[in-house]
Amino acid sequence: MASERRVSEQLAFLLEADRLKSVLRRTPLADDSRQENSAEHSWHLVLAALVLREHLAEPCDLLAVMEMLAVHDLVEIDAGDTFAYDVKAQADKAEREGAAAERVFGLLPPDQAERLKARWTEFEEQHTIDARFANALDRLQPLLLNAASGGGSWRAHHVTRAQVLARVEPIRETLPGLWPVVERIVQEFTDKGLLRRT
Amino acid sequence: MASERRVSEQLAFLLEADRLKSVLRRTPLADDSRQENSAEHSWHLVLAALVLREHLAEPCDLLAVMEMLAVHDLVEIDAGDTFAYDVKAQADKAEREGAAAERVFGLLPPDQAERLKARWTEFEEQHTIDARFANALDRLQPLLLNAASGGGSWRAHHVTRAQVLARVEPIRETLPGLWPVVERIVQEFTDKGLLRRT
Repeated sequence: MASERRVSEQLAFLLEADRLKSVLRRTPLADDSRQENSAEHSWHLVLAALVLREHLAEPCDLLAVMEMLAVHDLVEIDAGDTFAYDVKAQADKAEREGAAAERVFGLLPPDQAERLKARWTEFEEQHTIDARFANALDRLQPLLLNAASGGGSWRAHHVTRAQVLARVEPIRETLPGLWPVVERIVQEFTDKGLLRRT
Repeated sequence: MASERRVSEQLAFLLEADRLKSVLRRTPLADDSRQENSAEHSWHLVLAALVLREHLAEPCDLLAVMEMLAVHDLVEIDAGDTFAYDVKAQADKAEREGAAAERVFGLLPPDQAERLKARWTEFEEQHTIDARFANALDRLQPLLLNAASGGGSWRAHHVTRAQVLARVEPIRETLPGLWPVVERIVQEFTDKGLLRRT
């Protein structure tokens, strides 16, 4: 029988996780109706992992990837979403997110806290193919939404072509079959003037 | 090398899936700030599966469960979210959702369409432990949000204690360790008058 304390820690964690639905990203939904939040973004990446795994050059542990994607943004409950092109906010991102990981995963019973925090650390460290796959999806999905919404956060924040190319670079090596699409989108939005040339 | 057509079908599916973020459920977020959407709800269930699997009486295939949870609501893009306590809308739900499954999963390359549609069917049929686990989570999560938000959709739609107990019944058998919490919540909200006695 489950101990009452264990159940109550698990449910407290799940209720705290609910707050990720209120963390807004800079990327709009595909129909440009509003900004995306980090919870629905995480779901979209889980779905993308299911559909795009065949483009990996080497095999992955799909369950590990899905676990990682489900928890990779939970630290934003405390640390907020850090805009990819905000150099200043990126500077102390690791410190803010490390403290958040301690607190948020720490709501769980110790064995589960350790397991899910390890998945988050694996994502941050980018040493495994599972983490690189998760990261490539995390770079691809906002590109697709920015393109579908007619420029999205690129246009709103005067982002340059070079900034986007640096951001999506992990896709080139990890998901090479998708790279031609990425290049085509970046070229099209540069030609249209929705991505700055410099 | 990935065929161009295959990649373009996969990305079209992922962009279409984005619309699930605009399908609103009756359940509010825990902080009662707004209604939950079906995309972030799906993410919350994936996370719940990771945390609550130990309460299952028999082993499950966690990857299958997570796949199922990621796709279980996609039909709502066409069919909308059917309120659990709307008897009239429940009547033609299966027909509307079947047509939606054909169209939405049909955007994928045939092998992937078949695989993910089979996961959706498995969830609907409730014949496997994986499907029963997914379903029990799908009944538990709105209960937690309704309780956290002070009554949520129960109060707004004059739901009775008996209706909620019928709705959450799958939790009793599939996740017995969580049943005492469920009973306690239902009793508390009945006592407070936020769930109707009849």
